[in-house]
Amino acid sequence: LKPLAFPIEISLEKPSDLDKKADRERVVDFISQVVEAGAPIDIDLDVLRKLPVILRKGDYSLHCVIASYGERLEVVSVDETECYGIALDLGTTNLVASLIDLGSCRKIAMLEAPNPQIDVATDVLSRIHESMRGRGNELQRLLIEGVNALIGKLCGSKKVNSAKVFALAVAGNTIMTHYFLGLPVENIPMAPYIPTAHGTGFINSARIGIEMNPAGSLYAFPNAGSYVGGDIISGILVSGLYKAKQTSLLIDVGTNVEIVLGCDEWIIVGAGAAGPALEGDIAGIGMRAAEGAIYEVNLESDGQTGNVKYKTIGGKKPVGICGSGMIELVAELFRSGAIDQRGKFTASPAWAERTQGENEDKRFMIEDGETGDLWIRETEIENFLRSKAALFASIHVLVKSVGLSFKDLGMIYVCGAFGAHINVDKAISIGMLPDIERKRFRVLGNSSLAGAEGLLLDRNLLSEIDRIASLITYREMNTEGDFLKEFPAAMFLPHTNPEVLKA
Amino acid sequence: LKPLAFPIEISLEKPSDLDKKADRERVVDFISQVVEAGAPIDIDLDVLRKLPVILRKGDYSLHCVIASYGERLEVVSVDETECYGIALDLGTTNLVASLIDLGSCRKIAMLEAPNPQIDVATDVLSRIHESMRGRGNELQRLLIEGVNALIGKLCGSKKVNSAKVFALAVAGNTIMTHYFLGLPVENIPMAPYIPTAHGTGFINSARIGIEMNPAGSLYAFPNAGSYVGGDIISGILVSGLYKAKQTSLLIDVGTNVEIVLGCDEWIIVGAGAAGPALEGDIAGIGMRAAEGAIYEVNLESDGQTGNVKYKTIGGKKPVGICGSGMIELVAELFRSGAIDQRGKFTASPAWAERTQGENEDKRFMIEDGETGDLWIRETEIENFLRSKAALFASIHVLVKSVGLSFKDLGMIYVCGAFGAHINVDKAISIGMLPDIERKRFRVLGNSSLAGAEGLLLDRNLLSEIDRIASLITYREMNTEGDFLKEFPAAMFLPHTNPEVLKA
Repeated sequence: LKPLAFPIEISLEKPSDLDKKADRERVVDFISQVVEAGAPIDIDLDVLRKLPVILRKGDYSLHCVIASYGERLEVVSVDETECYGIALDLGTTNLVASLIDLGSCRKIAMLEAPNPQIDVATDVLSRIHESMRGRGNELQRLLIEGVNALIGKLCGSKKVNSAKVFALAVAGNTIMTHYFLGLPVENIPMAPYIPTAHGTGFINSARIGIEMNPAGSLYAFPNAGSYVGGDIISGILVSGLYKAKQTSLLIDVGTNVEIVLGCDEWIIVGAGAAGPALEGDIAGIGMRAAEGAIYEVNLESDGQTGNVKYKTIGGKKPVGICGSGMIELVAELFRSGAIDQRGKFTASPAWAERTQGENEDKRFMIEDGETGDLWIRETEIENFLRSKAALFASIHVLVKSVGLSFKDLGMIYVCGAFGAHINVDKAISIGMLPDIERKRFRVLGNSSLAGAEGLLLDRNLLSEIDRIASLITYREMNTEGDFLKEFPAAMFLPHTNPEVLKA
Repeated sequence: LKPLAFPIEISLEKPSDLDKKADRERVVDFISQVVEAGAPIDIDLDVLRKLPVILRKGDYSLHCVIASYGERLEVVSVDETECYGIALDLGTTNLVASLIDLGSCRKIAMLEAPNPQIDVATDVLSRIHESMRGRGNELQRLLIEGVNALIGKLCGSKKVNSAKVFALAVAGNTIMTHYFLGLPVENIPMAPYIPTAHGTGFINSARIGIEMNPAGSLYAFPNAGSYVGGDIISGILVSGLYKAKQTSLLIDVGTNVEIVLGCDEWIIVGAGAAGPALEGDIAGIGMRAAEGAIYEVNLESDGQTGNVKYKTIGGKKPVGICGSGMIELVAELFRSGAIDQRGKFTASPAWAERTQGENEDKRFMIEDGETGDLWIRETEIENFLRSKAALFASIHVLVKSVGLSFKDLGMIYVCGAFGAHINVDKAISIGMLPDIERKRFRVLGNSSLAGAEGLLLDRNLLSEIDRIASLITYREMNTEGDFLKEFPAAMFLPHTNPEVLKA
């Protein structure tokens, strides 16, 4: 493995009358031979200023830290044995970071925090409007402060000095990445939807003001356009989809939903408003996958009485239901006959007692909690079915558009915070995912973060990232005629024609 | 020509639904095609932040400035049509800078100022001792302040905003270059004489605190060891000695004297204490080549009476005599019989009137000036002869050491402030330079500055510089047995055996 930054011990021949090589070149030539022949190697100027004393103090042996700046390596610290890296998933709603010891190549901590830009606006388009009204700098500052606070907490949790973080790899959607780098976002939402940059390569961390070693390097995953961010590219990297001969599907559900279809020769990314319902953002009961969120549901019934069993994150008192919990709930309500094909509550005797209200207020009791009941409303189920229908219709249209059917797919990768807990069987049972062999499903969880972690540990992936970006073409899904034809049928549980799920 | 930095006008295809390339990549791809295919091209982050607005304001045409960072090019300014470069000769005694319009590739101004480090110590070894006593930062600050003041004056003289200077090329001896870059100098004077760095490549000007565009690039000529500085490498570059099949000689007289012998396969640099006498640093009458310095001398005599004619720099009243003036004076004193082969005043009737004093005070009157006489002492002539003997002996030993004689030399290049005014015939007549065909002499003047100017105008020279550095080996001259044998004979005018001058 070749990490983005790494500690190294150097033992040099001492200079003599026959070998008068300067300190800098003595170190550089050694690294060049031992680490990476042919790569240009620099020494940071501040480090070089300290080098002569440290070199002689250690009798020409020294520990130093090297960081990658793409093609180029740079000695970013001397007299230092520790080297950490941070992987960062820049979500619209949440920031997730992990801390990796690049000496042992082990992940030692992970932490999540809300994206502080939420205080200005919850969705990215509204944030861009705020930027156009002059609040761009404030939005950038909020994000950087949020990231720095997260890094501070993350390092603090393991008593790591953040000055020993020498590499940061960050993946996010195009807009979040632009905010992170302080790049203008104003042209992104206006046709023809042009970002300021697809990628900026490696940047010195001090240029962005990130709380890490000021000589450390920072890499933001490139985007493949305004609607295909570095987070998707990171996910594709983790899946390996871009290396396979057989076409595979990748579904990434975050605040937005992206569907990726491709192989080693082409990649299509389709995006549509499958919507936040899948990530738990449903008015009322919905919530993020946080403590107290229901993520697993089982309904038991003898035909006369019914019982709801569930698990919550952290085993805490239930306060809501997250995306994967919602899939389980709807799947179980449907399986046990509590709702019908259209998602409406039935008059099933086993569940009659739990069903109350009329019209808009018609609802089902999940828990008679001490601090109040927990209900799911019929309107909330309808919202959810709209999202699942949009997702399935998008997948179906995309796969058909390249002349394939579901059974031709090599793999289906399910990504996103949503994806971390998903029960594939139940998702299939409600017609959200294609009904193909279970062994062809792979649940990847937060693949945006995982890709950043992977890059931290192996800089050889840089060329893969560029390759993925070059393979991608983008498709707007919601506006396609086929999508609008498929969507209504997919609103049913599992579908008006279940054969379609396997086709 | 490919300057180190240059303005360029860019006209881009506008983005469309079929061409959604980001602003950054649109600009980078254009430059890559038009300027230098294959070279990595970056856009400075601050520039990138301004790019989207400027690009659209100019309807996808824009002026920008590109600076070289070695292999890599970087867009360092947008909405800018002017681009200047500064060449800098970092002398121990003087700083000399020239301002070059990199749009028209013309030199538009040149200026000189004393090196402010002189206030701490006149010679470099004393400065290093001061650094070891804790005054290193002060010495660096003095130098940077001196350079910044010089740049300010230089730009001011042509009403150029120094923020429009995007490239700086600097050549100096190893110690001066170390001070300039803020690198430790402490190990340079101690065996085995190891510099901190041979070269650092391109550095962002903001890292050194130079008064120019903060995104601009700065290149310091590398050294080939503690005693072979970037100034010598710059001189070798200007001479072209490193490209010729036939071996040539280059003599650089500054505060120190370096002799270079070489061809396209090898280069030997020999240094010795030929001494400051050659640059005019003689107690009493000696001075730098500044206003009022005598630089040309002619003695006329009818055998009975004698007359001294001379020219001064700026045509001013004579205040002293510079290095080249000293050569002329000694040559004329010898030719006209006023001094003998040993440099002692004769009893020649034509000059008897002008010769006064006894022993240590024995002196010759150059001018009966209004504000006081101008005299040259016998002891001063002896000092000078010691320097000329050291220079000639060094040259002779070096040439013989490779099995050659003077007549085998292709060219003799004479460099240094000293070299700018030198009369080669007179220097030969006193046995200071070898007596070979005059057409094989080339007087290059301040070749350290000229090399820096050349690089500013043609970055292709970077590879030549690296090649020169790799060809060089260094020879300490003063300690060689042959030198000590040759030296006494060369103290005579022109030599105890004039045949040696042609051998």
